[in-house]
Amino acid sequence: MSRFWNERTRNLKPYVPGEQPKETMIKLNTNENPYPPGESVLAAMRDAVNGGLRLYPDPEATELRETFAAYAGVKAENVFVGNGSDEVLSFAFDAFFPAERPVLFPDVTYSFYPVYCAHLGLTYEPVALKDDFTIDPADYRRENGGIVIANPNAPTGIALSLSEIETILKANPDSVVVIDEAYVCFGAESAVALIDRYPNLLVVQTMSKSHALAGLRVGFAVGQPELIDGLNRVKNAFNSYPVDRVAQAGAIASLKDSGTIDANLNTIRATREGVSVALRGIGFDVLPSSSNFIMIHYWNCSAKRLFDHLRKEKILVRYFNLPRIDDYLRVTIGTKDEMRTFLDTVEDFINSLDKN
Amino acid sequence: MSRFWNERTRNLKPYVPGEQPKETMIKLNTNENPYPPGESVLAAMRDAVNGGLRLYPDPEATELRETFAAYAGVKAENVFVGNGSDEVLSFAFDAFFPAERPVLFPDVTYSFYPVYCAHLGLTYEPVALKDDFTIDPADYRRENGGIVIANPNAPTGIALSLSEIETILKANPDSVVVIDEAYVCFGAESAVALIDRYPNLLVVQTMSKSHALAGLRVGFAVGQPELIDGLNRVKNAFNSYPVDRVAQAGAIASLKDSGTIDANLNTIRATREGVSVALRGIGFDVLPSSSNFIMIHYWNCSAKRLFDHLRKEKILVRYFNLPRIDDYLRVTIGTKDEMRTFLDTVEDFINSLDKN
Repeated sequence: MSRFWNERTRNLKPYVPGEQPKETMIKLNTNENPYPPGESVLAAMRDAVNGGLRLYPDPEATELRETFAAYAGVKAENVFVGNGSDEVLSFAFDAFFPAERPVLFPDVTYSFYPVYCAHLGLTYEPVALKDDFTIDPADYRRENGGIVIANPNAPTGIALSLSEIETILKANPDSVVVIDEAYVCFGAESAVALIDRYPNLLVVQTMSKSHALAGLRVGFAVGQPELIDGLNRVKNAFNSYPVDRVAQAGAIASLKDSGTIDANLNTIRATREGVSVALRGIGFDVLPSSSNFIMIHYWNCSAKRLFDHLRKEKILVRYFNLPRIDDYLRVTIGTKDEMRTFLDTVEDFINSLDKN
Repeated sequence: MSRFWNERTRNLKPYVPGEQPKETMIKLNTNENPYPPGESVLAAMRDAVNGGLRLYPDPEATELRETFAAYAGVKAENVFVGNGSDEVLSFAFDAFFPAERPVLFPDVTYSFYPVYCAHLGLTYEPVALKDDFTIDPADYRRENGGIVIANPNAPTGIALSLSEIETILKANPDSVVVIDEAYVCFGAESAVALIDRYPNLLVVQTMSKSHALAGLRVGFAVGQPELIDGLNRVKNAFNSYPVDRVAQAGAIASLKDSGTIDANLNTIRATREGVSVALRGIGFDVLPSSSNFIMIHYWNCSAKRLFDHLRKEKILVRYFNLPRIDDYLRVTIGTKDEMRTFLDTVEDFINSLDKN
């Protein structure tokens, strides 16, 4: 605490990202893609590393927006680009949510949402997930200044259908509804298909997960032009050039590399299903995931104890010391080999438990 | 305007960056470095373009902070890294300046400062530069919630001495004083040397200008740890990973490449002095610059008219339609060849004026 911090800074409770370990570990804790970006992406980035770096990037990322628009089946005027979807989400909270009415989001969801609210002086009301960790769209029929739904939700991995999202959109014509689709490519339907019909819909996506470019920091928002213009106003009151030249080049190439992306998505989905079946077979509760991670619970061992054991065995998963989910672990789907090691380690451990 | 924008967004007047022209022009409008980064910088970035991009970058940019600390003669705990100095400046306004008292900065300075204030709900009081466009430190002896001084100032290019900065720091022990040193390497003294003695001092620097990496987006703040911690609180309430892997690698390499940097700085300074002498020789008023740009005025032609003529001749400079400086042009110092063309074009034009 410092006397130089203003009141808001003193009251902030910053988000704590998952650990980036210095030692070599099987890293299943921050939902990164286990497969690297394709060679065409790396080649495009190497080409972008040239004498032109002395010049500012295109502040409007025109070519990248046009490429994403073609990829997503929308127009460039429907696309906003930022320095990772965390920045894009923060801009959306900043541009659209009023101070007077609470933002709604599930009580169990991406834990950055309440942090954005605190930073921006917004109030929020967590809306309880049902006992099975699903979202009931009917719960979003109350006064609010905005709604944020991660679909699939994190850290549960459970997806809403498009018709359930439409129920929320229709019930809230005067609120901006942000659908955070960080994990959508792993098994949910994108709400981008709905933007023409719902001026209150903003869809946020990222290249960090499905495109294996977490190290690059590129995120998108998709919506009608008036929402995109609102995001641009906030961006241009903060940082004119958020996405650097090399990142723009890599993102453009990756959006054109659907072969690599689709193959890796298929592998990750198949691995997820295999691991889920295997874990259930040895007594685990595994939430039904549409994402690249699974939430798991074991009847005979606390999540923290299993987390600590795995860490000792150099397998890093994510433990949340939070209400309702403190007896679950979130496990990113890694490569087949990594998940084989994970399953063997888990099975050995629970066998040792059963003997005690 | 949209009914979905909140009140703050409706009232924003976003910053307008200098044009990034699509056609080939002599580009003297956004104070970029005319010489490219060194080969070792490009090589380090190409090396960073590899399969590891699937993983998040180090959120704390530890190696980059350590490298910058060694470069600047401070400790890593004194260093904050962000996505360009615009982001770093915004975080500083956000973390330290209270809503209750006005932020002070010169009436003629970087025009992003009032935009940050509007975005963050802060009030500000512009402090008039003297008639010769210099800053009088005694003018910063009044009630305030924070002070921002660009040194050298932009777009004037005029620098304060360290003792003048100390006068401001001593007069304001309870306010954070931000010294924005975007252009310091081109001819001013850095206030980094003062951070041990002034807990209220935050120095902001960038790799965009002196290090020729505008396309990469890396900026720094230097100060005592309590100020750095305040910036980290804001960063972690906004975006955990602001600086991507390739940018971190390029910035580290450039900070070690003092040979290239110093040679280019020397050339730019020599070019600036030569151009200034030549312009004065043909009747221009040229403010004394410690930066990589000059502010110029001609007695017999409006700045806008000269701007339009230069643009027609494919030379892009910066015209500000703002009080006090609307009869000046800001001209970035380009290569020797670019400045020769600029001088010839200007001279031809004013000769044609005199004949009319």
